[in-house]
Amino acid sequence: MRSLRSVALVLLATFGLAGCADRPVDRTADAAVGSDSNAIAALPSWNDGEAKQAIVDFVARVTDPASPDHVPPAERIAVFDNDGTLWSEQPMYFQALFAIDRVKAMADEHPEWREMESFRAVLDDDREAVANLDLHDLLKVIMAAHSDITTDEFEAVVEDWLATARHPRFGVAYDQLIYQPMVELLEYLRAHEFKTFIVSGGGIDFMRSFTEDAYGIPPDQVVGSSGGLEFRMDDGVPTLNKLPDIDFVDDKEGKPVGIYRYIGRRPIFAAGNSDGDLQMLQYTAPGDRAAFGLIVRHDDAEREVAYDRDSHIGRLDVALTEAPGRGWTVVSMKNDWKKVFPLPDLP
Amino acid sequence: MRSLRSVALVLLATFGLAGCADRPVDRTADAAVGSDSNAIAALPSWNDGEAKQAIVDFVARVTDPASPDHVPPAERIAVFDNDGTLWSEQPMYFQALFAIDRVKAMADEHPEWREMESFRAVLDDDREAVANLDLHDLLKVIMAAHSDITTDEFEAVVEDWLATARHPRFGVAYDQLIYQPMVELLEYLRAHEFKTFIVSGGGIDFMRSFTEDAYGIPPDQVVGSSGGLEFRMDDGVPTLNKLPDIDFVDDKEGKPVGIYRYIGRRPIFAAGNSDGDLQMLQYTAPGDRAAFGLIVRHDDAEREVAYDRDSHIGRLDVALTEAPGRGWTVVSMKNDWKKVFPLPDLP
Repeated sequence: MRSLRSVALVLLATFGLAGCADRPVDRTADAAVGSDSNAIAALPSWNDGEAKQAIVDFVARVTDPASPDHVPPAERIAVFDNDGTLWSEQPMYFQALFAIDRVKAMADEHPEWREMESFRAVLDDDREAVANLDLHDLLKVIMAAHSDITTDEFEAVVEDWLATARHPRFGVAYDQLIYQPMVELLEYLRAHEFKTFIVSGGGIDFMRSFTEDAYGIPPDQVVGSSGGLEFRMDDGVPTLNKLPDIDFVDDKEGKPVGIYRYIGRRPIFAAGNSDGDLQMLQYTAPGDRAAFGLIVRHDDAEREVAYDRDSHIGRLDVALTEAPGRGWTVVSMKNDWKKVFPLPDLP
Repeated sequence: MRSLRSVALVLLATFGLAGCADRPVDRTADAAVGSDSNAIAALPSWNDGEAKQAIVDFVARVTDPASPDHVPPAERIAVFDNDGTLWSEQPMYFQALFAIDRVKAMADEHPEWREMESFRAVLDDDREAVANLDLHDLLKVIMAAHSDITTDEFEAVVEDWLATARHPRFGVAYDQLIYQPMVELLEYLRAHEFKTFIVSGGGIDFMRSFTEDAYGIPPDQVVGSSGGLEFRMDDGVPTLNKLPDIDFVDDKEGKPVGIYRYIGRRPIFAAGNSDGDLQMLQYTAPGDRAAFGLIVRHDDAEREVAYDRDSHIGRLDVALTEAPGRGWTVVSMKNDWKKVFPLPDLP
């Protein structure tokens, strides 16, 4: 359904260069998460302000049986983008860093890759060469890291990578770079009988390896981009192989499609951080129904990275322009969040 | 990924003729459903016997923390086929009957259909002509009933059909022809912290219109065959249109693929009734792990329809042969079920 080109364009940003911020300042914050309905206790890493108040007011409105905007629990569907919304996406999408590490780890078994410009650029950490690659060649590299492997093997490879790889700036495992205020928001919504889903352009199998531990979101509530799968009985053993093709790109117009296909219900709460989330926000909260649109704005150069309209990764331009007219809440990481990451030593 | 031919073959059976049974004998049975863990109370429409005992024993084994086969709640995934497993599929798949009614209802807007042999056969109720149709032509008829319509409109059309259409033999709405013992089994599993899913070759959008009311299974826990979707903002109104193409066929080898793609976890309980469920049963319960495979066998010509190895619809042949070797439980509708349907006036 999607052209290879559109797929590749999505993935290209992956390898772009992104601005680097200064070292973070250590802070302390109470990252404990409450599960009751008291907003002050339940969203401890949020500063008081318009954004937090808007969230609390909305949840009160749709959960109050006496409110004209009351929504029954079964219809309280909340969807969250992942990269840049629930965890960091700088200096590039973490899954791209995984793909690079994986291609390097597989290189010995694939001496032919040394003869291919695209793979050589990745193997040599030549970012400029990677950025100038033909889109089809680039896609081949990404797919090589995610296919010709059984699903069980792939899960083990991702878990191993998450356990051992370290972020270049913060020096911690990538799944420690989740946003504490957003984890609290997920728990706050679930405490009010929302069902929380991830709807992300990231690879669905990659994300499912950590979303339950990191966010309390089980695999069947993760929607993402996916490749082909093939089922076989190998000597009586059921085996699913990941194929080197793209089945579904869960980005831009793909997000409402992914929501309907996987969830089958229109959400009443959507959170994103980039133009890749525009259509999901439009579908959820076009402005004429009781629904909440939230945009995480990366404006904190000190504690994370500041980027929006001109960024290769997580570009936020059209959605930012459209936000006021549709009543979406723009969350300033700098002003609305007391703390960014859960680890005490991180900002 | 799937050839049009394989898709069409799946759909072809749809229009085949199936054996008709005698009129049912009225019976009474207590269809009340308990939600505690007492098996006698919880599965009231099941006769005592090997099948019921095997279910109860399995659930006890995987839920007992002291058992070597204990499975934590998050991994208690149960998957159920729909047609022939949770509701009846005779004299043909109910969705095919819907498609026929829908094409008839749309015929006035499509005078060109009268000129097309395939549509004319359906419009004239000419089953023999339908059975002899070219597969591509047949598929066009089916797709016409399911596309060029917004998702909201489609939901309304299906709901209206379910509210008004009546089964030719039993004279009740199609969603009354669910199997009471299977509904009890779903509730029994959920009472033991299983998460229950439908994994069916049926159309996902069609099924979701009734699965929550009929089975207590919300839309996001329904996996099925699907067509393309297109998202647009029409004058600021978010719109999803159903397209006349097939995206995914959730049958045979497609079932493990659908399970992994939608659920992301290997089930420990699978229930089906035909060779279309073979691979789902193999994937779930190959015989070497703590898992349960269940086959509903249609051997009750009196209360429903008796069919298996030679049937056009719901053929049960290879899976029936494979069942003993893999330890799957074959449920006899005739012997294991006290009552088939929930309505007091039905058998």
